[in-house]
Amino acid sequence: MAISSLPCIQPVDTLLDSIKWDDKGLAVAIAQNVDTGAILMQGFVNRDALATTITSRKATFFSRSRATLWTKGETSNNFINIYDIFVDCDRDSIIYLGKPDGPTCHTGSETCYFTSIGDLFKEQEVEETNLALTTLYSLEATISKRELELAGKHGKPSWTKRLLLDENLLCSKIREEADELCRTLEEKEDSSCTASEMADVIYHAMVLLRRKDVKIENVLEVLRRRFSQSGIEEKQSRASTES
Amino acid sequence: MAISSLPCIQPVDTLLDSIKWDDKGLAVAIAQNVDTGAILMQGFVNRDALATTITSRKATFFSRSRATLWTKGETSNNFINIYDIFVDCDRDSIIYLGKPDGPTCHTGSETCYFTSIGDLFKEQEVEETNLALTTLYSLEATISKRELELAGKHGKPSWTKRLLLDENLLCSKIREEADELCRTLEEKEDSSCTASEMADVIYHAMVLLRRKDVKIENVLEVLRRRFSQSGIEEKQSRASTES
Repeated sequence: MAISSLPCIQPVDTLLDSIKWDDKGLAVAIAQNVDTGAILMQGFVNRDALATTITSRKATFFSRSRATLWTKGETSNNFINIYDIFVDCDRDSIIYLGKPDGPTCHTGSETCYFTSIGDLFKEQEVEETNLALTTLYSLEATISKRELELAGKHGKPSWTKRLLLDENLLCSKIREEADELCRTLEEKEDSSCTASEMADVIYHAMVLLRRKDVKIENVLEVLRRRFSQSGIEEKQSRASTES
Repeated sequence: MAISSLPCIQPVDTLLDSIKWDDKGLAVAIAQNVDTGAILMQGFVNRDALATTITSRKATFFSRSRATLWTKGETSNNFINIYDIFVDCDRDSIIYLGKPDGPTCHTGSETCYFTSIGDLFKEQEVEETNLALTTLYSLEATISKRELELAGKHGKPSWTKRLLLDENLLCSKIREEADELCRTLEEKEDSSCTASEMADVIYHAMVLLRRKDVKIENVLEVLRRRFSQSGIEEKQSRASTES
């Protein structure tokens, strides 16, 4: 039998059978950045597109207008490298958790979602840098904006600007906030204090990241690479390079 | 004219006209947690569903099977409170950025995406706690797992477990890593060192969060509430309660 000579095919087929394909044989597929959580793009998949993604580990979709498979990146080289795939409780919606090689949108924007309903209301010109950002990345964007304002000498005074301009102040705040975070544990303070102090640590440390031109995405990538092995193994592997 | 007596209607209609509805009058809508970036659920919207979401600020969809509007939470009370709405470059896919009042999935799971393709391959039983997690939340889940293993007295030794058991070690590491992060700026070290030290700060601080039973989502919520005003204003408003 063909199936026994191709033992790997059966489980993929079984898996594909478990998806609830719509009347056109399609399901929704959402590509999400595994590190930042940013929704990169959304397309549709048929059986072949999902099977191709599973085997190639590159996010692949079915184009409804051209009625063909297409792998994101096949022309731009900005592939989305698959880290994991999830289906929802109804089995008709799929998340491609992946790492993009570059901007996902054909416009050159990092993601396809740069048009806020608010901007459409105000009939403002859409800026491709105004992405749908979740909290951490929205904070990162705000810090970057404050840095740009410093050069232009306008905009209101802000604590972020003071920190960006004063390395001593910034570092003394980071050490102070880390100490305060620890004291919420040592002195058995309320959990709400811990959340507040951790927010302080993250915010001040993110101003330092901006000063060093490091994106929070880079930091998360370091964490992802690290915690796939145990911390002790990881510390041992780093022992020779660390102080 | 009716339009001049209802001045607010025109822009909503204009906005709804700009969406590229499919042959059934639908577009894809993805609900995403504004703080964590978790994709909560995906549904479809028609004009009425999107208009209702814009005015009610509760994520509302069109049920294709029942051919009716439904607001997530209308039976469970677990509404998704809209923070912002984005459309993609093709104007046929929508993100509802929102804050859920409770678990989004009808199964009681935090999100509808708890079935990994890998589990389907292995024909393993699907666990509703095995969510599609991005890096920060995957790390948080790993730390929680290590804490659970401590109680069971099995599992391999790990650095996380040592930190969870030893408050002095944990706090001294947090202070040390914060100091090392600062020194990458003060001593003009390479940016890759900054990313690595920031990863250390976040990881160790997240172990402390686990000890204090604080979710990283709580911390991000604090940050979101805080940075909608300027840092200086915010510090002034906190001045009386801070050391």
